[in-house]
Amino acid sequence: MIYLDNAATSFPKPEAVCAEMDRCMREYCANPGRGGHALSIRAGMAVNHAREKISEIFNISDPMQLVFTKNATEAINIAIKGAACEGCHFITTAMEHNAVMRPLKTLERDMGAEISIVSGNSIGEIDPEDVREYIKSNTVMVISTLSSNVNGIVMPVADMGRICREAGVLFLVDASQGAGSIALDVEACMIDMLAFPGHKGLLGPQGTGGLYIRRGIMLKTLMEGGTGSNSEYIYQPGIMPDRFESGTMNTPGIAGLGAGAGFVIKTGLDRIHEHKSYLVSLLTDGLSQIPGIIFYSVADKNRNSGIVAINVGDLDSTELSCLLDRDFGICTRAGLHCAPAAHGVLGTERRGIVRFSAGCFNTENEIFNAVDAVDRIVSSTKYKYP
Amino acid sequence: MIYLDNAATSFPKPEAVCAEMDRCMREYCANPGRGGHALSIRAGMAVNHAREKISEIFNISDPMQLVFTKNATEAINIAIKGAACEGCHFITTAMEHNAVMRPLKTLERDMGAEISIVSGNSIGEIDPEDVREYIKSNTVMVISTLSSNVNGIVMPVADMGRICREAGVLFLVDASQGAGSIALDVEACMIDMLAFPGHKGLLGPQGTGGLYIRRGIMLKTLMEGGTGSNSEYIYQPGIMPDRFESGTMNTPGIAGLGAGAGFVIKTGLDRIHEHKSYLVSLLTDGLSQIPGIIFYSVADKNRNSGIVAINVGDLDSTELSCLLDRDFGICTRAGLHCAPAAHGVLGTERRGIVRFSAGCFNTENEIFNAVDAVDRIVSSTKYKYP
Repeated sequence: MIYLDNAATSFPKPEAVCAEMDRCMREYCANPGRGGHALSIRAGMAVNHAREKISEIFNISDPMQLVFTKNATEAINIAIKGAACEGCHFITTAMEHNAVMRPLKTLERDMGAEISIVSGNSIGEIDPEDVREYIKSNTVMVISTLSSNVNGIVMPVADMGRICREAGVLFLVDASQGAGSIALDVEACMIDMLAFPGHKGLLGPQGTGGLYIRRGIMLKTLMEGGTGSNSEYIYQPGIMPDRFESGTMNTPGIAGLGAGAGFVIKTGLDRIHEHKSYLVSLLTDGLSQIPGIIFYSVADKNRNSGIVAINVGDLDSTELSCLLDRDFGICTRAGLHCAPAAHGVLGTERRGIVRFSAGCFNTENEIFNAVDAVDRIVSSTKYKYP
Repeated sequence: MIYLDNAATSFPKPEAVCAEMDRCMREYCANPGRGGHALSIRAGMAVNHAREKISEIFNISDPMQLVFTKNATEAINIAIKGAACEGCHFITTAMEHNAVMRPLKTLERDMGAEISIVSGNSIGEIDPEDVREYIKSNTVMVISTLSSNVNGIVMPVADMGRICREAGVLFLVDASQGAGSIALDVEACMIDMLAFPGHKGLLGPQGTGGLYIRRGIMLKTLMEGGTGSNSEYIYQPGIMPDRFESGTMNTPGIAGLGAGAGFVIKTGLDRIHEHKSYLVSLLTDGLSQIPGIIFYSVADKNRNSGIVAINVGDLDSTELSCLLDRDFGICTRAGLHCAPAAHGVLGTERRGIVRFSAGCFNTENEIFNAVDAVDRIVSSTKYKYP
């Protein structure tokens, strides 16, 4: 099997991630807490370790401002809804995932929120100055993906951050694609809130993610419940990170995420990005030799987080992806990737795109095999394509 | 170490739970989906398996009405907020956890919701007819715990369900304590929504939980995002369970939960409950020989899900719990257990309670050792108690 669906979930995981999760399940999966019994303290230490490791990756000075969530979607919902009010205005890009678009559309419908969508060029790259144009008196937040989950295109978040800070508008970055390989400094990029999944580039397990909230930003809560702190207080406490971590946490998952983040730090984000970029360029070069391939991604490592997005002739994306899986054991992702607006930009809203997404464990040989498989599908009379 | 904190998280886990999680992490932790590549299909099968096993435990006829969440707190928030509207009325009991109380108080503050709290007797047992008294024209929901997380007292959910169904009011049960040992049939008990954690009596890992929603009940969403279904639709789709499962799911956790639920079914809920009840009666008997012990729980197996709740003399609960941990390696939970109102009922809001909660893997000997430890703390001059 050749796994090229790392933009959905990275696979395989480092041995340390699997080992730490198993250790947690067998030795210390009690409720993490600052006090409590020995097992509870050990669980709390694993959670703190993960908080510190991830803070190191994003240059978050106070790990207590980092909230663990079940995935990036929860983190984005907390951020957007926590700051929303009647008639407020959001600015976002056309390359966003439904994790951003659907909460915004829901607020528009139920709360009279306004949404402005910044369109970019034909592959989704936006001009940060366009963001400035949209900012008005009721703008509360600008939301941008770090990199598109459809074609990997990288957004100018540092420039957007500066523009938002100057205008006094909150800046939320969805780092679902790129966290763990694209260097991202919340201070330097003036990011107020950063949502990320644990199970993609940070190499942790599914069921983990997080939200960094800059100190001083007070959001409404999406959920309330037991926090283990101020238990006698009838409302949700303001203390961080408890305010957004109600109920029992995913200790084994977070312990695994801590190990994943540790692996990323030890390996080096730059090295991981270089490797993925090299594979993207190999795959792009190889596929470009095959007649009938249409590219929606670029090979430039400064503009791509690790995705090759293509179609073949007028073939439906699902068909090519299924053949790659069925006949060659190659895992890719077809369809709309939960980002219909991005496909609108790319002109692929009808048939989708076949997405090849590289991970840090993919090899040259796997890429050569993938190119060969596409070539055989395209050229073989068996498949009658193109 | 003697672990008697199973009401927080059950520990240890069955071997099959640890093994399945590890297998998932190493072999198939891709994004679960109905279509997609081979690994994605295998992940989807593990999620479906867990959905079916848990449906079997609660007699849920359509597993698609079962939504996976990160914990019971998320499930309760989805249920309560999904049905809330301006000026609506909720009825609940004084024995509820902050996972119920805090969302309700937040709705009261922010949405003008009304809350009625049914008080019971001195150990929290309520008369279901009292619930009927509180129902009025704007009542939308009655919420009851299956069993208190402070003293294990079991609530008359079947009677409450009948009363709610007759009155046309939604009935939400928080099965955080008791799921996996107390037989609970959503049809027979006329339960409209059932929230549960995966990591307690169902023996799965932390980071899992769920909400059953009876077919025909349409709730507003708490979160929106990618569902892998109707991706081109700009709002959250209505299809179940996708409507409430946005973003990447906790596949390894849910796979482990499926194994946990399978273990519970194979062992038999009745047998697990019998075992826990036997340990509760042993512990209660043993502790009642020690002078100065105050009980807040009963030993009757029909009225207790598996908790012995005590204090010693006028000692603070935290002190006793810490001594048990430090000097005897016995894990218990002191304080308010995130349920201040329940402690109000029991008269322990100031010093809390020491909670011993049995699990299906605890042994007679562990109970004897726990009794001995309390006896030594109480009688030893070293500790100067009572």
